[in-house]
Amino acid sequence: MAVRWPAGIRSAGVACGIKDEGLDLGLLVADRSVTWAGAFTTNATAAAPVRWSRARLGRPVRALVVNSGNANACTGEAGERAVADTAARVATELGCSPAEVLVASTGPIGIDLPVEKVLAGIGSAAAALGPASDTFAHSILTTDSGIKTSVRSADGCSIVGVAKGAAMIAPNMATMLAFIVTDADLSQEVLQDHVSGAVDESFCRISVDGCASTNDSVFLLATGGTVPGQGFAAALREVCWDLAEQIVRDAEGGTKLIRIEVAGATDDASAVAIARGISDSVLWRAAAGGGDPNWGRVLAAAGAVDPGLDPAKISLSLGPATVFSHGRPTGGLDVATKAMDGEEFTVRIVVGEGSGSATFLTCDLTEAYVTLNAGGMS
Amino acid sequence: MAVRWPAGIRSAGVACGIKDEGLDLGLLVADRSVTWAGAFTTNATAAAPVRWSRARLGRPVRALVVNSGNANACTGEAGERAVADTAARVATELGCSPAEVLVASTGPIGIDLPVEKVLAGIGSAAAALGPASDTFAHSILTTDSGIKTSVRSADGCSIVGVAKGAAMIAPNMATMLAFIVTDADLSQEVLQDHVSGAVDESFCRISVDGCASTNDSVFLLATGGTVPGQGFAAALREVCWDLAEQIVRDAEGGTKLIRIEVAGATDDASAVAIARGISDSVLWRAAAGGGDPNWGRVLAAAGAVDPGLDPAKISLSLGPATVFSHGRPTGGLDVATKAMDGEEFTVRIVVGEGSGSATFLTCDLTEAYVTLNAGGMS
Repeated sequence: MAVRWPAGIRSAGVACGIKDEGLDLGLLVADRSVTWAGAFTTNATAAAPVRWSRARLGRPVRALVVNSGNANACTGEAGERAVADTAARVATELGCSPAEVLVASTGPIGIDLPVEKVLAGIGSAAAALGPASDTFAHSILTTDSGIKTSVRSADGCSIVGVAKGAAMIAPNMATMLAFIVTDADLSQEVLQDHVSGAVDESFCRISVDGCASTNDSVFLLATGGTVPGQGFAAALREVCWDLAEQIVRDAEGGTKLIRIEVAGATDDASAVAIARGISDSVLWRAAAGGGDPNWGRVLAAAGAVDPGLDPAKISLSLGPATVFSHGRPTGGLDVATKAMDGEEFTVRIVVGEGSGSATFLTCDLTEAYVTLNAGGMS
Repeated sequence: MAVRWPAGIRSAGVACGIKDEGLDLGLLVADRSVTWAGAFTTNATAAAPVRWSRARLGRPVRALVVNSGNANACTGEAGERAVADTAARVATELGCSPAEVLVASTGPIGIDLPVEKVLAGIGSAAAALGPASDTFAHSILTTDSGIKTSVRSADGCSIVGVAKGAAMIAPNMATMLAFIVTDADLSQEVLQDHVSGAVDESFCRISVDGCASTNDSVFLLATGGTVPGQGFAAALREVCWDLAEQIVRDAEGGTKLIRIEVAGATDDASAVAIARGISDSVLWRAAAGGGDPNWGRVLAAAGAVDPGLDPAKISLSLGPATVFSHGRPTGGLDVATKAMDGEEFTVRIVVGEGSGSATFLTCDLTEAYVTLNAGGMS
């Protein structure tokens, strides 16, 4: 059954012709102005829609429009105009101000957005609005193999999220978009704190290829009406983590989810840095793709991040097998190989005696990823 | 004709059985104690031979022994003992102290060095010493397709270098080894300044896969006898750059040398950081492998490194084609595609109006790289 948005929110997804086939334009509308908060890429080449939406932070909105198949990034003033025209058309449909319309895009960089197609699509989408999220969730996909949704309830509040993302996924966000709606009644400031915290511990802890995108955006809209209890923050984190994990599971060319657990670090930040270093090692990820328990590449990646690590205090496991401990190989390669044979396995590295820890998600690097990304621009 | 070392240096390479086939043990001997300087990986998991050789810095040496086929990294006390035993055997052969023997290794991580094979090989190598560098240059190779040598003379001094490296090559060194000998007469302190400067502008400006190794080592031995002139530093840099370029040209799975030129940065260090970011983008490198002029991925990589960049001030060329300028795509994709079709092309990005610049070398990412690195440990 299709996931429904909280009351007061409707959406639709339509095909407007940016992509050769499939839905490529999504519209999400609130019956009344709603509070929102967000998190965006820090990339200097942030796309025009990112700059537009970021500038709307702090003021209520009525709608959100998103296209797939074109990032509208690195497109200069034409890109800025396309966003303004897009927001204006949505505003006309709804009878609100363009400043109350958020915009997001995902797809190839550096190609002018076919704005006439988008404007026509907005009309069709506005006519198709409904309480289910499914066509909207489909319209935001690029190389994703399927929609990604997550729902939680906490203390009477509900949280409903949809996301997309399959490559150019890196810590500090990704080419990923997430749209989350809650009926919680929260001020903008509190909502922003919640989304910043949840994003930091979810979408910022995944990496498919270490490439930070121009278009990453997470939107959290709050329709209000229900006063949230203590469980809200945890439920929001769960939704974000669930969506983030779905993104990594659907990674371009990836065949295995790799859970990297770092413990014993000086603090959580250095644990995150070490986990990120391991997840960025294409040598290790290629070995993982081949089911090869090449743990030396994990250690080398960790040691490259933090030259202060002491190998004598490091222990490393692949699945249930401890392969390195107290500065020495400890065997276990057969068990490790078996653990790596599944669709998911855990790398656990204890790097010292500190209290810092982090969990990070990545995937293997395969020939298919390279093939998928070796063409398409021309 | 085989490259000869400066007078007073002899070497040999033999097969001692670490690898299934081919030469895998090299010995380089100076007739008398010589001054030396070096540069080593900063990785916390630095291999036992790296720690041994680094500890010898500042005191003259007589010989250098290197094995391929085994990194002797992450091997704990057994690894330390293997290095000490190796140096002791060389010392016995030459009638010097073990402390006068440098050691280097390259190959897979985390496997105990078969030290008996190494010790037997040292005897054979000592009996085969000669003035030519070729068997030594062969003995240090792993997945390299051929030997790498470079020779320069400057103001009457000669500089002869050999190197190896084909993957786990990253800025701040690489799984690369370089052995350079000069007859220049220089103090240890001056020699160290020269090698640090030259390495910083050569081996630290290449990346094959962004993976920093446990075994990177550059050794510069000076036999003395010739007082070098002003041209020495430039000649040494040329040798290092030449060897670094040969390493990238021989990169595992790589089919194209990509020269990344960054200009207009705040300072040289930020230009290097941006170049490194571009060279670390697996998305861009996959596109390069497919001959796809996907310049948006170059911009996204640069923008991820420095969130302060202003796209309106960036211009970007692929080969002779300017594809982005003043915040806008400028076409040129056909010309760019043609330029990318060869064995070598240049990405040039001007990121602002600063005076910082850097040149960096990398290569494309191909299915072959992934295949080559997907197995082998078990």
